[in-house]
Amino acid sequence: MPRYALKIEYHGAPFVGWQRQTDLPSVQGAVEAALAKIEPRAHTIAAAGRTDTGVHAYGQVAHCNMASDWDPFRLSEALNYHLKPQPVAITACRAVPEDFHARFSALERRYLFRILSRRAPATHQAGLVWQIKHALDLDAMQKAAGHLIGKHDFTTFRSTICQADSPVKTLDHLSISRVETPGGPEYHFDVRARSFLHNQVRSFVGSLERVGTGSWAPEDMKTALDARDRAACGPVCPPQGLYLAQVCYPIDPFA
Amino acid sequence: MPRYALKIEYHGAPFVGWQRQTDLPSVQGAVEAALAKIEPRAHTIAAAGRTDTGVHAYGQVAHCNMASDWDPFRLSEALNYHLKPQPVAITACRAVPEDFHARFSALERRYLFRILSRRAPATHQAGLVWQIKHALDLDAMQKAAGHLIGKHDFTTFRSTICQADSPVKTLDHLSISRVETPGGPEYHFDVRARSFLHNQVRSFVGSLERVGTGSWAPEDMKTALDARDRAACGPVCPPQGLYLAQVCYPIDPFA
Repeated sequence: MPRYALKIEYHGAPFVGWQRQTDLPSVQGAVEAALAKIEPRAHTIAAAGRTDTGVHAYGQVAHCNMASDWDPFRLSEALNYHLKPQPVAITACRAVPEDFHARFSALERRYLFRILSRRAPATHQAGLVWQIKHALDLDAMQKAAGHLIGKHDFTTFRSTICQADSPVKTLDHLSISRVETPGGPEYHFDVRARSFLHNQVRSFVGSLERVGTGSWAPEDMKTALDARDRAACGPVCPPQGLYLAQVCYPIDPFA
Repeated sequence: MPRYALKIEYHGAPFVGWQRQTDLPSVQGAVEAALAKIEPRAHTIAAAGRTDTGVHAYGQVAHCNMASDWDPFRLSEALNYHLKPQPVAITACRAVPEDFHARFSALERRYLFRILSRRAPATHQAGLVWQIKHALDLDAMQKAAGHLIGKHDFTTFRSTICQADSPVKTLDHLSISRVETPGGPEYHFDVRARSFLHNQVRSFVGSLERVGTGSWAPEDMKTALDARDRAACGPVCPPQGLYLAQVCYPIDPFA
């Protein structure tokens, strides 16, 4: 069966997350239902990242198997037609070899987390950022983030319901930048790893925000990491600032 | 009575525009209702720009007169409390002299228009951009925009219901940039003048988009301007890409 890679953008608010759940709206379910309009049968697709309830994506990647040969552009147009009016869009579609697997072939996942810092309630960006009312110390956060980069036991930053076999992961990159936007200053967290534990990014950002406010010293991040204890984590921050931004493969299927 | 300048941000979708209308939701009405929660009486505020139905603002400016002396920060916090959950936020508030008038003291209004160019339906930015499916020729649009800058009779780019005394206005600035965003390429139109005719910015952008697609040559913009005929205008583009971005005064009340 011909296989296609789909790059998927979505607004997380109306969904219980990526993964299909009976009787609850999921992104996977929405895409599979659109596929069933095109080739009427049960479809099961696999994705690179199983994003949580309320988490957004710019660059989720999934693959699907089709019975017929489809022009990839026409397939994406047909899927977008059937996905409307849900806030899910196929932004790219390509034919891929049968051994391409959206989840298992992925070399790196990149997440973006957006914090908007201002007192007045967000209007245009409501639901698209985590809003806090105070400024953050960028240098302190960046210093603290340095302790997280590399291969570590991330038990502290792992949800208790995480199903990964091991708490040891390698964090490739964690950089933080302050971005001036028309709506006010934002802090953007760029977090990259081959794979993540459940709630790892939101646990990182929640703890780094504590450093940014001065509640934690940068070195407290190392103490928290070394504790290998979930209780040492800062507060897990809310999902609406988190985006699955990009998934990297040995050969970019969308190049 | 002490007078206060308010910088106001809003999402235009739920409103019939800035101006108060009986039994219809307006931004002016929302702010005046919030003021009435703080000082119970009828309030009438004046704003720099009477934005249309569905038009957004980052930097609308209005002024209000209060019976009591208010700490400006506390006044903005109280207004934001009473404005919730409407997508209207007071982002700055300052005491101003009694001769400050949000509308008549303004020297320049700056509007931003955002076009998102991509085929897949917008998700995160739905309602915040005008989406078109094709790329635009930036150089051609910028060349065409050059014909509009300066003092002209803008009858072509003026709504037939415009109530301004004269169609002659001076356009200070009209620049167009292409901005790469996570959601795809956007074209941003930065349009500045002391004052505008009704629908002038949306008439400009609708006509410039015709140039960007190649339907019009850049010189056709001059022909349209010189015609001084509403029928010579391109299609007026929709409101959801338009933002009142900034209002400039002899002395910045928020500095």
